[in-house]
Amino acid sequence: MLTYDLSDKNKYYALYRAIRGDILSGNLKHGDKLPSKRSLAEHLGVSVITVQTAYEQLLAEGYIQSEQRRGYFVAEVSPQNGAPTPHPLCVEEMEESYSLDLCSGRAPVKLFPFSTWAKLMRQTLSEEGGHLLERVPCDGDRTLKEAIAAYLYRFRGFKVDARHVVIGAGAEYLYGVIVQLLGRDKPYAVENPAYARVPQTYALNGAKCNYIAVDDCGVKVDEVEKSGACALHISPSHQYPTGAVMPAANRSRLIGWAEKSGAYIIEDDYDSEFRLFGKPLQTMAAMNGERVIYINTFSKTLAPSLRMGYMVLPPELYARYRNLFGNSANVVPLFEQKTLAKMLDGGFFERHVNRLRNYYRGVRSLLLQKIENLPVEKEIIETGGGLHLTVRLPSFASDEEIKKAAKDRGIKIKCVSDYLIKPAEGYEKIAVVNYSSVEAERLK
Amino acid sequence: MLTYDLSDKNKYYALYRAIRGDILSGNLKHGDKLPSKRSLAEHLGVSVITVQTAYEQLLAEGYIQSEQRRGYFVAEVSPQNGAPTPHPLCVEEMEESYSLDLCSGRAPVKLFPFSTWAKLMRQTLSEEGGHLLERVPCDGDRTLKEAIAAYLYRFRGFKVDARHVVIGAGAEYLYGVIVQLLGRDKPYAVENPAYARVPQTYALNGAKCNYIAVDDCGVKVDEVEKSGACALHISPSHQYPTGAVMPAANRSRLIGWAEKSGAYIIEDDYDSEFRLFGKPLQTMAAMNGERVIYINTFSKTLAPSLRMGYMVLPPELYARYRNLFGNSANVVPLFEQKTLAKMLDGGFFERHVNRLRNYYRGVRSLLLQKIENLPVEKEIIETGGGLHLTVRLPSFASDEEIKKAAKDRGIKIKCVSDYLIKPAEGYEKIAVVNYSSVEAERLK
Repeated sequence: MLTYDLSDKNKYYALYRAIRGDILSGNLKHGDKLPSKRSLAEHLGVSVITVQTAYEQLLAEGYIQSEQRRGYFVAEVSPQNGAPTPHPLCVEEMEESYSLDLCSGRAPVKLFPFSTWAKLMRQTLSEEGGHLLERVPCDGDRTLKEAIAAYLYRFRGFKVDARHVVIGAGAEYLYGVIVQLLGRDKPYAVENPAYARVPQTYALNGAKCNYIAVDDCGVKVDEVEKSGACALHISPSHQYPTGAVMPAANRSRLIGWAEKSGAYIIEDDYDSEFRLFGKPLQTMAAMNGERVIYINTFSKTLAPSLRMGYMVLPPELYARYRNLFGNSANVVPLFEQKTLAKMLDGGFFERHVNRLRNYYRGVRSLLLQKIENLPVEKEIIETGGGLHLTVRLPSFASDEEIKKAAKDRGIKIKCVSDYLIKPAEGYEKIAVVNYSSVEAERLK
Repeated sequence: MLTYDLSDKNKYYALYRAIRGDILSGNLKHGDKLPSKRSLAEHLGVSVITVQTAYEQLLAEGYIQSEQRRGYFVAEVSPQNGAPTPHPLCVEEMEESYSLDLCSGRAPVKLFPFSTWAKLMRQTLSEEGGHLLERVPCDGDRTLKEAIAAYLYRFRGFKVDARHVVIGAGAEYLYGVIVQLLGRDKPYAVENPAYARVPQTYALNGAKCNYIAVDDCGVKVDEVEKSGACALHISPSHQYPTGAVMPAANRSRLIGWAEKSGAYIIEDDYDSEFRLFGKPLQTMAAMNGERVIYINTFSKTLAPSLRMGYMVLPPELYARYRNLFGNSANVVPLFEQKTLAKMLDGGFFERHVNRLRNYYRGVRSLLLQKIENLPVEKEIIETGGGLHLTVRLPSFASDEEIKKAAKDRGIKIKCVSDYLIKPAEGYEKIAVVNYSSVEAERLK
């Protein structure tokens, strides 16, 4: 049987590389059957998961093929013709192996209350039966819209008209809908630095973007006022990556700008559920429901595979939305919508979020301890909210040096400057500690 | 209790109007509790469904509110301030009551094999467990991608590389992805007449559209060649609404055009499953996999609430897709993807489609009989495919007269000219008989 030395730290990757090498060199030929996952795992003394992950990578890149109930076979790959090139992102993720990832925004799947979710799914299935096949109105199932409105009131003290809630397949999907609603004639103002998918999604949807600098108080209001934008996308409660929380005065000024110029503010409240101390801040949408589009998602609080987000549209925009999309069905399956409504109405969601918040509070305090023990000059920038914090590290020569030092300790980290969409000064030597995906046991 | 005379044909609408009237006139006031559905139904001698539908309409339009476990209450609606205006589309649908709808594309929900689907859902839930929460790669779950590729080969004789299949939340969603892939610099060529959502969706995504006239052979190739388009969206197997099937010679010429100009052909194969006689036609994507994007959906074959469609991208476009969207998760929940994969792999889908095909064959022959018995001059334009046919009715004075005559018989129908996106001559006096939503019993 195939025999490889897998003493590497990252065994699956070593196995992937070994088999890929054999395929490219012709030791394994087109049509050759690979050993079953179980038998290869036993043979090599590794776990079945390791073999499976390696096979999946080879499969994804087209080196092998799977045939139902028959197993895995070497695909037709001729080294002369050039093998399928792996996706650069995959390579980057694989080449480097870290013991702690402080960049990823994905919550550990094990935190999800799967048994509750599965129970509610079964309930939905038997209660709703064939109704689950009915066409969902463009803006989503009414039960879920009402459950979200009730939740926003309970959790956020934010009173919305359930009719104006629009359900969509995640936040990025909803950004696209907003561009379709507001058009592409005028630019959109976005934060700089920012989570890159935000400006990327606007750009993919054909919108021009103006980048507005972010300081300790969030976007610079002066720059917004000069932007000529039809809409401003911000996260006033907890900006990513700077962590800035926008003070009330700036919020009022921005709302004044929107009222005067007829623009909209897109309030992306992506991690308000994770304010770890004190009460969540009032939404800007509660300050002015005519000019602010409130947007949030369940990807962070539930699971990344449940693509569900929602927005609350101002009445005027909601009417336009109905005119444009009245004939289309909602893109999220009714089954997930009904299940989520049960999760919200039954109080399961809030209980889960409370548990998550406790969990992250623990992770955060372990991380803060570790940071405080670092033998370097540092300033922890704290806002008590969200799933990331920033640390100023003035004694390093550069951001590259910070990342290198972290990497040498097996830690994957990014700096604020890595999130600059447009080059700018003044964001150097600040590390972003994103603990969304951190498993508490790793820190002990 | 509320007492209304509901002798109207369309009882729920009469009830809706009666209650709305009472709310607007102030007979029912803000906060008043409405009778329970059951008791009002008994009181008025109508079915609970009638009351429920009326309440739902009132709820959707904001005249009443529901409170969990407490019932329905009159909302705050002041006639002076203007009551919420009902969506024009809803009004149109309600004002007219038809006994037969030959316009709707929605299959009767009762045809869906719900017990099989529910069984597969339960299986998926117990087999996959927590894996269902994992993030799905941008292009969809591999099991489903492979199941679709295998299905296309079995059913359509169409061999595709499963890697290049991209899953999306319905066809309209995928049109948007295509615009993001191909950009907005050059126009898109679309059919005229056509199903309006196609050009509308391109336009909403910021793409300019050129409208290409359709004749008996599908789009006019000369016009495509002059269009300067980056892509042409067509349904060569069964154009909607004309029913035109594109002959092989035109298909070759179009592929030649795409090769020469570097354009893409978007082959929308929306109803090929419903070719009622003979084998389905070869896809254009099978003729040239480099220049044709194949696109299809399960909304027609399964249920409109399952927003699942897919496209097969040429390798070059697939690579671009991965570069643009590699960081995004797929928008369709993994649960539905895994369940659909089981439905395809287990042969349940094909069995269901065969049943549907038999059903529609019956509907179609009943309809054809009725059409042939009509005491007017007519020419049935037959292609043996899809879920609609067209009938030329030369003795009528106008399309309006055709629709009026149908309406007088309780039949809702449209003419080919109703689908013109841009005014054009030569499409008069052809009725479109779309039997997607027809229940066979109604015809007997």
